Amino acid sequence: MNRTHHNGDLRLENVNEHVELVGWVAKKRNFGQLVFIDLRDRSGICQLVFDESMSEALKDVRNEYVLSVSGTVLQRKDANPDLKTGEIEVKVEKFEIINKAKTTPLIISDETDALEDTRLQYRYLDLRRPVMQNKLIMRHKITRSMREYLDNNDFIEIETPMLGKSTPEGARDYLVPSRVHPGSFYALPQSPQLYKQLLMIAGFERYYQFARCFRDEDLRADRQTDFTQVDIETSFLSEVEIQTMMEEMMVKLMKEVKGIDIQAPFLRLSYEEAMNRYGSDKPDNRFGYELQDITEIFKNSEFKVFKDCIDNGGVIKTIVIDNFSSITRKEIDKYTELAKKNGAKGLVVLKAQDNELTGSARKFLSEDEVKALYDTLSLKDKDVLFIVSDQWIKTCNVLGALRNEIGYKLGLKKKDEFSFLWVTDFPMFEWSEEQQRYVACHHPFTQPKEEDIPLLDTDIAKVKANAYDIILNGYELGGGSLRIYDNDLQEKIFEILGMSEEEIRNKFGFFIDAFQYGTPPHGGLAFGLDRIAMILSESDSIRDVIAFPKNANAKCPMSKAPTPVDPAQLEELHIEIKK
Amino acid sequence: MNRTHHNGDLRLENVNEHVELVGWVAKKRNFGQLVFIDLRDRSGICQLVFDESMSEALKDVRNEYVLSVSGTVLQRKDANPDLKTGEIEVKVEKFEIINKAKTTPLIISDETDALEDTRLQYRYLDLRRPVMQNKLIMRHKITRSMREYLDNNDFIEIETPMLGKSTPEGARDYLVPSRVHPGSFYALPQSPQLYKQLLMIAGFERYYQFARCFRDEDLRADRQTDFTQVDIETSFLSEVEIQTMMEEMMVKLMKEVKGIDIQAPFLRLSYEEAMNRYGSDKPDNRFGYELQDITEIFKNSEFKVFKDCIDNGGVIKTIVIDNFSSITRKEIDKYTELAKKNGAKGLVVLKAQDNELTGSARKFLSEDEVKALYDTLSLKDKDVLFIVSDQWIKTCNVLGALRNEIGYKLGLKKKDEFSFLWVTDFPMFEWSEEQQRYVACHHPFTQPKEEDIPLLDTDIAKVKANAYDIILNGYELGGGSLRIYDNDLQEKIFEILGMSEEEIRNKFGFFIDAFQYGTPPHGGLAFGLDRIAMILSESDSIRDVIAFPKNANAKCPMSKAPTPVDPAQLEELHIEIKK
Repeated sequence: MNRTHHNGDLRLENVNEHVELVGWVAKKRNFGQLVFIDLRDRSGICQLVFDESMSEALKDVRNEYVLSVSGTVLQRKDANPDLKTGEIEVKVEKFEIINKAKTTPLIISDETDALEDTRLQYRYLDLRRPVMQNKLIMRHKITRSMREYLDNNDFIEIETPMLGKSTPEGARDYLVPSRVHPGSFYALPQSPQLYKQLLMIAGFERYYQFARCFRDEDLRADRQTDFTQVDIETSFLSEVEIQTMMEEMMVKLMKEVKGIDIQAPFLRLSYEEAMNRYGSDKPDNRFGYELQDITEIFKNSEFKVFKDCIDNGGVIKTIVIDNFSSITRKEIDKYTELAKKNGAKGLVVLKAQDNELTGSARKFLSEDEVKALYDTLSLKDKDVLFIVSDQWIKTCNVLGALRNEIGYKLGLKKKDEFSFLWVTDFPMFEWSEEQQRYVACHHPFTQPKEEDIPLLDTDIAKVKANAYDIILNGYELGGGSLRIYDNDLQEKIFEILGMSEEEIRNKFGFFIDAFQYGTPPHGGLAFGLDRIAMILSESDSIRDVIAFPKNANAKCPMSKAPTPVDPAQLEELHIEIKK
Repeated sequence: MNRTHHNGDLRLENVNEHVELVGWVAKKRNFGQLVFIDLRDRSGICQLVFDESMSEALKDVRNEYVLSVSGTVLQRKDANPDLKTGEIEVKVEKFEIINKAKTTPLIISDETDALEDTRLQYRYLDLRRPVMQNKLIMRHKITRSMREYLDNNDFIEIETPMLGKSTPEGARDYLVPSRVHPGSFYALPQSPQLYKQLLMIAGFERYYQFARCFRDEDLRADRQTDFTQVDIETSFLSEVEIQTMMEEMMVKLMKEVKGIDIQAPFLRLSYEEAMNRYGSDKPDNRFGYELQDITEIFKNSEFKVFKDCIDNGGVIKTIVIDNFSSITRKEIDKYTELAKKNGAKGLVVLKAQDNELTGSARKFLSEDEVKALYDTLSLKDKDVLFIVSDQWIKTCNVLGALRNEIGYKLGLKKKDEFSFLWVTDFPMFEWSEEQQRYVACHHPFTQPKEEDIPLLDTDIAKVKANAYDIILNGYELGGGSLRIYDNDLQEKIFEILGMSEEEIRNKFGFFIDAFQYGTPPHGGLAFGLDRIAMILSESDSIRDVIAFPKNANAKCPMSKAPTPVDPAQLEELHIEIKK
């Protein structure tokens, strides 16, 4: 082999050159006495022509055989405009079969109808499909672009431990039994949060890491057993200074990877505004249909549902979809279902036509209310109103979910359109129905807003944090915060979260200790790399941008991991399987 | 805060500028009515001068307090040539104490006498020492330089699974119990070997990854529970093509990180030559004292030790150290001890003086043999000969160990001198005394040399492999090989290694399957990043180039990991601790 070119790089200007190529047989066909082969490598496909004398030697050659060929580049008579190399072909003078191939269980082409488990079982073949190769190549371009920005801005990549301490907070840990310390376990990191803060205490000032993180949670389309976090932390910077750098990084990324100019600074919405307008703390603002508050209209309503809601301090909100009056009873049922799944007690749907509203709830509304709706919402014929009345957060969440579903249905979530924004001023705490107590909204190291610190003693639900998320197309790309750097404040937050002295000591003792030796003001954020790669490569699942992902059952259909192991291994680790 | 400069960057040209700085108090001293503070940040130190009016407010400020100051840059009267900023100081006009600090348990300066466990327990303070910060900064420069080379040469970084299948081959696996699949376990990767080969089968052609790898082995100065491997694989390239690229990468690295021009191509020694000349497969050729074969001289020896050795097919080799005759009896005993620890039955030590040799073995040698030694080895007065007679490999190993120890003692292993070389043509198999069978020298996927394939059926000890190590200063920086790409040959190697059909299926089934669908010729290597960083930063231990390392007991003195966990966690994982 003395490969002179990559197959996809050959062009008209190479005509008459002697070339040596290698690659896989993508297609073989006979045309009269001639044999044509499309030879594929990572760069693309080139058409080879073999004359009659070679047809016997080519007899057994099939798709996915590995060939090495030498020959001369010729101009094609009938160019193929669909192919980068479509204007040329290579007249083969010599060839060698480097390796054979059985018939592949899935076809190596961009289009496939193979089941996902088959694709994952034969992932090395699935990844041969150019569309899949290009996704991983794009992922690499993304990491390269982000790294370059960080490197050029004085950030230092530092690797933090993979075998850490289990601190059951948030998600479940993956545990690793210790051979040397019987009965003890390491935990795989859920994130390098404590370590990156310790690196700020150590004085590194600007840190980053492309960190593998692990959470033993049930898997979904955009969840895996482990994921890659672009973890960033800085010292001595304000929230806006951090956000501005991240915007610069995203502008560079979008230009380099997608060839798209996006504008910075990004839109900044407070959490409250995001919820009020989009019903989501990760709003997709590629389309409108914003939530509108109509509580005022119904302040004297005789409709019991609305009246009870307002009496209980709730709100009434609506989204209005234009030209939507062809909606069927069945569709309305489905949206009602979706609303209920998101916690609504019900969903009011009304159609506007000829200055009147129709729908099963119409009978509970007064003429004045109908008129007020028309005026306030500037209703037009064929508009459809979806109305929810409940506590503020529930009302927002339900209408946000409906808005997303309708935006998707109407084709308004365009994969090639990219809208970035920040959501800021998150609440510090949120009420957990499950645990019946307040929990940290972001994490317990988040800095409350200075002006809200007095509220820690009086009304913690009102305390806002210096916490921010970066959103792209309705996905949370990343999130971060300024961190507490005052030891007393940190201990107070732990207390509010209901942690005992002993629990704090046990979980975070070394961390609390570190805070006493000159902690700088610091803050940062973390991006979900898999998600960025998924969105930019316009994929439907993060599995498409991971070389060897697990399936939804946390299993690798290729290697079959996890598997039973040799009992001697467990013996050495001082554990046994519970019957 | 509105930081205008980094402390270490201020120079004469900044005189009269208004600056705002932040950082840690490195030193505070009074001089008459004035207070001087050295303020440290990541970039270095700058001297601050506070006038009398501020001394009361500074009263409590101690080392490691975090300050923010604003003031004017002045030229110093008596410049400090040891400091980059030694020609200037900053006259402080305003300052603020951002955070306080307790007295640190270790002094924040390059020199430290703190015990390593104390340094690891307060690692965030240990890493504040500029010498330690600079090591991690250098590590980052190394990764950046290597990545840049790989990125610019069409390599694609691809992340491979962290939760894989346990294949107990080589080192012990770290296991991770599965919550979803009771009784099953994932294994943390010992290396991405199978995955990188699968990526070649998938057609990526050039892959790299800075991969975290795990081996549950007992720790030493240059071992950790996990380490970072610069993992590289290529398709369609020859051994020399791969090596040439790696040399280019190293030339670039040494220039960028150390400012040193090194020459490529590197010296290439076959395994046999490396063993014969240096007694090591990772020779340190920064100094001479090569091994010399003197078997021929003793072919008729009456010295029973030499005679028996030769009769049993062994060899007699020596290293000659000049100007070494001041060696004491006690030192000779220590070298003999070292020889025995490396498997020698004994060590012959002779001193040359006035055409005669002295030493306890002299009496067993004939005059002719003494003369032949003088002639062959060109002996001079004060030379000392260390002679070992044993089977070839043992003789080489023992003298290699002595040579290294003596080179170290004589100060010939200069930390600021860098000598790269390749060792090639490794044997395919080696005899394992422990397992009483042949094992793979590199790993079972290594390609035997084409001309040696017939020997697989007749004399496997003689089979050489297309395997190569890259050596720097006596350390193996990395190693690799061309891989088998023929399915039948791979199965044959597994058989030779004593693996049953079932065992092969069980461990490598999916891998063997993959080989049937058009595997390209491929090969690569892997570098130990920690080791590269250790050598280039002139450190004694890899712990110095890892932010938060484990101690020799596989424990983190800071977080105390591994620790006992909540029984409920084990319950969920379907395991229990064995009593």
